[in-house]
Amino acid sequence: MENPLTPEVLADPVALTRALVDIESVSLNEQAIADHVEQALRGVPHLTTFRHGNTVMARTDLGRAQRVVLAGHLDTVPHNDNFPSTLRGDLLYGCGTSDMKSGVAYALHLAVTLPEPRYDVTYFFYEAEEIESTYNGLFLVSEAHPEWLRADFAVLLEPTYGVVEAGCQGTMRAIVTTHGERAHSARSWRGVNAIHGAGEVLRRLQAYEGRRVTIDGCAYREGLNAVRIVGGVSGNVIPDRCEIEVNFRFAPDRDAAEAEAHVREVFAGFDLAVTDMAPGALPGLDNPAAREFLTAVGAEPVGKLGWTDVARFAAMGVPALNFGPGDPNLAHHRDEHVEIGKIRDGAATLHRWLAAV
Amino acid sequence: MENPLTPEVLADPVALTRALVDIESVSLNEQAIADHVEQALRGVPHLTTFRHGNTVMARTDLGRAQRVVLAGHLDTVPHNDNFPSTLRGDLLYGCGTSDMKSGVAYALHLAVTLPEPRYDVTYFFYEAEEIESTYNGLFLVSEAHPEWLRADFAVLLEPTYGVVEAGCQGTMRAIVTTHGERAHSARSWRGVNAIHGAGEVLRRLQAYEGRRVTIDGCAYREGLNAVRIVGGVSGNVIPDRCEIEVNFRFAPDRDAAEAEAHVREVFAGFDLAVTDMAPGALPGLDNPAAREFLTAVGAEPVGKLGWTDVARFAAMGVPALNFGPGDPNLAHHRDEHVEIGKIRDGAATLHRWLAAV
Repeated sequence: MENPLTPEVLADPVALTRALVDIESVSLNEQAIADHVEQALRGVPHLTTFRHGNTVMARTDLGRAQRVVLAGHLDTVPHNDNFPSTLRGDLLYGCGTSDMKSGVAYALHLAVTLPEPRYDVTYFFYEAEEIESTYNGLFLVSEAHPEWLRADFAVLLEPTYGVVEAGCQGTMRAIVTTHGERAHSARSWRGVNAIHGAGEVLRRLQAYEGRRVTIDGCAYREGLNAVRIVGGVSGNVIPDRCEIEVNFRFAPDRDAAEAEAHVREVFAGFDLAVTDMAPGALPGLDNPAAREFLTAVGAEPVGKLGWTDVARFAAMGVPALNFGPGDPNLAHHRDEHVEIGKIRDGAATLHRWLAAV
Repeated sequence: MENPLTPEVLADPVALTRALVDIESVSLNEQAIADHVEQALRGVPHLTTFRHGNTVMARTDLGRAQRVVLAGHLDTVPHNDNFPSTLRGDLLYGCGTSDMKSGVAYALHLAVTLPEPRYDVTYFFYEAEEIESTYNGLFLVSEAHPEWLRADFAVLLEPTYGVVEAGCQGTMRAIVTTHGERAHSARSWRGVNAIHGAGEVLRRLQAYEGRRVTIDGCAYREGLNAVRIVGGVSGNVIPDRCEIEVNFRFAPDRDAAEAEAHVREVFAGFDLAVTDMAPGALPGLDNPAAREFLTAVGAEPVGKLGWTDVARFAAMGVPALNFGPGDPNLAHHRDEHVEIGKIRDGAATLHRWLAAV
């Protein structure tokens, strides 16, 4: 198949977004798009290109004092009657327009068109971000070739609608279990109803006020929520067990141990088991490349509430933030789209940042 | 196969209990026991015998002013390393010893050995009481041949450990549903958590005080309990729905409509759907045959808390009570057993009642 990523397409972030959207790449089906991206990069004299699975990386080696990463994932969620793309006025519709082929287009466009960026740059195009993390290309490369990801600062081109979202909140899950004693429901006073006992757990959740905290000018807001509850033996038995799964989203000034201690304090007196823990990432905006990036954008950063792959960079010691043209509220929706103007504005911002001397 | 229910065995309620226990009759496998019972009854000159499926009935027609029913089910729950019977001292162990072949033995023994009872008697041996009610022999006959069950009073020979349990409580199930709005759990304040909303339902259940009421000297005690709870969409979504199944056990002075109205009042403001309703039965102890029965037993009746087939008799206009030698707490347990002395005491009581003139 001919490569739709022609030199003319690579020169225009809007045309490139559309071409990338029109290459089907639902998670675990990224081979075609990775082949096209790799081929587009291999011929560029100022880049060295690597591949691991369906993750493709290209880097400059100009001996700059600082190295930055521009990263985007190649996969999308499954289509929902929104493939291929359609253009309606100033809006480009289709699966992956917002999340995040418009961001991928930035990195690929700059990789090919900017031979002498002000920092050395690692352009990173990875597979399988939308599914469980064991398939995630950023995770796999961080395990197999951590040296590929060494850098002073990273920009993850996830949809932020043109603002800078810095750091990210952590997420933790735990199961709170209440215990009772079974009895026949015709003689309920002989037992202890574990579902009734869960009422106090729900009361504490209902009363919980999530902390708001500002770090490096970024506002974060925590939340503690039941995401699942299950209990019951049969229609005539007083249940002896009820499980409430809770999800704590926490600001990046708490580490994993502090987050767990806090949740244990909230549910003091109850049986609690942690089932999942992914710490967040501090904004890391005191880094010089990050400061220059913020200057180029010309707007204050905001805190990222959801957990994103910036936390993987943070875990490798690379401060990272999110910046992309798509609207994050449209991600994974049938009417996903991106504004042409936003693509052009963001491309200009990145160019201003990387090309300046 | 030779009938183990020989004249010698039929003459002794203890030997008869053991012989009945040793005929395997787990629910839906009652053909052999029904055949043996029918054969034992067919040859008796003072009885007329009928059969419907694996339900067997025999009746006297002596022209007495009153007719009473003695009823017992032939089936058992599945065995649990407790078949066939074993005798240890004064205790007969085995599946069905308590629930309720010792009661069935009473009816069969009296049917064969008492040619001129003081009332006309209908002896009723029915199938499939331990499983869903569509198979229940008492239900099936009440639909197909309601005239077979016409009577002034009924004794259901279910295990009561030798006391008289009168009437029975009703049982009702309903689903209380709380509603909310989905949102990503990283931005939980944009949604409404339906599981948190269930906390108020559980609080009302926890605070609920079951009414105690005495009717015809029988004490009843109500209870309202959650028997199941389920809610949750996925680990990162604020759930928009939670269901709490509640079971209300209510005294027989409330009918179905009153029971439902009460539960709706308890959960005022919540979405509630009734899923199951089986009204109870009043003790009905003002009936002459019932009064004479209580005199023969010589002890005060107590209220029956669980729902039993006495409610089916009550629904047909036949006051009914439970009386049997087994311990109801042993029913369906691996170490189910019955005391030989209790079998003999109860048989003497029933004989005193029915034989007296």
